[in-house]
Amino acid sequence: MPRSFGHIAGQPVGSTYGSRKEVRDAGVHLPLIAGISGTAAEGTDSIVVSGGYPDDEDYGDVIVYTGHGGRDANTGKQIRDQEISAPGNAGLLRSHLDGLPVRVVRGAHKDSPHAPNVGYRYDGLYQVDSYAAKVGIEGYRIWRFTLTKLKDEQISTPPAVAPQAVVHPRVANPAPVLTTTVQRLVRNSSVVQHVKAWHEHQCQVCGLAIQVATGFYSEGAHIRGLGQPHHGPDVEENVLCLCPNDHVRFDNGAIYLTDDLKVIDALTGVTIAALRVHPLHQINVTYVAYHRAQWTVGTPRNEP
Amino acid sequence: MPRSFGHIAGQPVGSTYGSRKEVRDAGVHLPLIAGISGTAAEGTDSIVVSGGYPDDEDYGDVIVYTGHGGRDANTGKQIRDQEISAPGNAGLLRSHLDGLPVRVVRGAHKDSPHAPNVGYRYDGLYQVDSYAAKVGIEGYRIWRFTLTKLKDEQISTPPAVAPQAVVHPRVANPAPVLTTTVQRLVRNSSVVQHVKAWHEHQCQVCGLAIQVATGFYSEGAHIRGLGQPHHGPDVEENVLCLCPNDHVRFDNGAIYLTDDLKVIDALTGVTIAALRVHPLHQINVTYVAYHRAQWTVGTPRNEP
Repeated sequence: MPRSFGHIAGQPVGSTYGSRKEVRDAGVHLPLIAGISGTAAEGTDSIVVSGGYPDDEDYGDVIVYTGHGGRDANTGKQIRDQEISAPGNAGLLRSHLDGLPVRVVRGAHKDSPHAPNVGYRYDGLYQVDSYAAKVGIEGYRIWRFTLTKLKDEQISTPPAVAPQAVVHPRVANPAPVLTTTVQRLVRNSSVVQHVKAWHEHQCQVCGLAIQVATGFYSEGAHIRGLGQPHHGPDVEENVLCLCPNDHVRFDNGAIYLTDDLKVIDALTGVTIAALRVHPLHQINVTYVAYHRAQWTVGTPRNEP
Repeated sequence: MPRSFGHIAGQPVGSTYGSRKEVRDAGVHLPLIAGISGTAAEGTDSIVVSGGYPDDEDYGDVIVYTGHGGRDANTGKQIRDQEISAPGNAGLLRSHLDGLPVRVVRGAHKDSPHAPNVGYRYDGLYQVDSYAAKVGIEGYRIWRFTLTKLKDEQISTPPAVAPQAVVHPRVANPAPVLTTTVQRLVRNSSVVQHVKAWHEHQCQVCGLAIQVATGFYSEGAHIRGLGQPHHGPDVEENVLCLCPNDHVRFDNGAIYLTDDLKVIDALTGVTIAALRVHPLHQINVTYVAYHRAQWTVGTPRNEP
C-alpha cells in the first residue's frame, strides 16, 4: 500500500487516542515505537512529538523537531552525531523538498504546553519549512526540522477540470491522496528590494539574471533565516540576491560561504565561485558564519 | 517621495470615498484618471477596478484585471494591441516579479457584484499571481493580470532582531514600507510527484537536477495554469518537471513549447532545446498550445 499523505478519513484534527496502538489502528501514525514514519524515497507522512528530546521546541503552530539516530538504546542519551541519511531524517528532508504534508501527533509529556494531558492527539498537517544541523544540548550534532502548521486553505484537492479541457486517460498509478499545498515561500520586503536593486537582479553566486518580458527576476535570500529557530534580521547585511536555483541550494546547505565570501560546494568542499559583491552592499560575516555552521557541524565539540 | 506600497495609515480596508479626488487625497491611489498607479522600475502600488473593460473578471478575492493601452480616447474602445511595456502593465509585471502588494480600490459599476453601490472603496492588498496575453472580446491583444487578495498573515512587518544579532548601520535609503509577503507559490500534488519521479527531478528544459544533501529538488510546473482564469487540470499530461529557474521562465513566458516539444526562447524566437521526455509521461499538446498562445499573441486575429 502506498504511504498515505494528508488527513486520514474519519480522523479529524483533535482526535484523541489512548495508546500508540490506537494511533496506529487509526492509520494516523503507523510505527509503534519510532517517532518518524517515512523513508528517503517516499518522504515522511507523520511524526509523533512526545518529549524526551531536549532540543525540541514546541510553539504550537511551529515545531522545531529533533531528528533521530545516535542515541544510546538503554539510556536514551545522545552518544553519537545524527546523520541526515538516517531514514526518518532523510524522509523529513524529502517532505521538505517536495512540500509533502506531515501529520503531527502529540503525546502527553511535560515539556510542552501544547501536549495533551493524557494519551495522544492528532494535531493536523504541518509542512517542513526548513532544516539545519547544530550541536545539541548533549554535545553531538543533531538535525532539526522546523515544521509549520498548514492552514485549511493550503490543503485542497485540485481544482475541477474545466469543461473545455480534454483530459487523456491517466498513464500512471492512481494517486493515493490528492493534496495540494504551498511549498516554497519567498519572502519579500523593502530590504530585499534594496539588495536586488544593487545587484540588478544578478545572482551573487552564478551571475545569472533571469529575464522575462520587460524585466528581470531574482530572489532575496536571508543568510541567517527569519523566524523560528534562527531569528535572523531582515536587514541588507543579512540578504543575498540569488537566482531561484542558487536560492534553493543556499537554503538547503548545498552551498555555503566562507568569511572571505567564497562560495563552497558542500558536497565536494570545492570553491566554485567568489561571491559577487556591490560596494553599497555590506554583508555581515556573523550571519555568514551562522549559516555555514548549520551545514558544517562535524566532530562533536566536547570530544577529546 | 518614494512610492508607498502596502496599507496607508488611517485608511483601513473598507474605507469609502465619494470621488477619485478623495481617494487621491487619502493617499490610496494617486492618479486622478489612470486606473493603474506605477512604473516599470518601481512596480504598481495601486489600481482602481471600475468597470468598462469587458475582459475584466471580478470574483472578489480573485480579480482578472485588464491592462491598459490601445484604446480610442473618444470611444473607449480597443483599437490596437496592448503592449506589456506600457507603464501600468510593466508596473504590474514588476509587482508580480517582486511580490509587491497592490492596493485595490473598487469604484461603483454594474459589471461586478463586488463593486460598491456608490463612490469608491478601498478593498485591501492583493498580489499579482500571474499574467498572460489573450485576444480580448474586442479582437485585440490584451494583457490580463490575475490578482489574489492577501490574507492578514501574509502581510507583516519583519520579525524583531534577535538580541544576539549584531546589526550594522543601514547603508541604504530607509525603506518606505516594510511589508513581508508571500511571493512564489509552488503547488504540489500526487500528480506532480509522479512527474518528478519519472524524470528523477531532472529539469525537462536544461537537464539540471539540483542536489541537496541526500536528495534532489525540482518543481512541478502546470502547463495550462491551475485556477482563475486558466482552469488547467492537475493531471500528469499538464505538468512539467522543471528546475526553479526554468519554472520562473516558463510561468512568465520567457520560454514556451512548440507542438513537437521544442523549447523556444521567447525573447529571441530561437530554439534552445528539445524538451526532455520520458516514455510514461505523455504531454497533452492542447495545454502546450494554450500556454504558447498566452505569449505569442501577435497581430489581431480579426484584422484583414
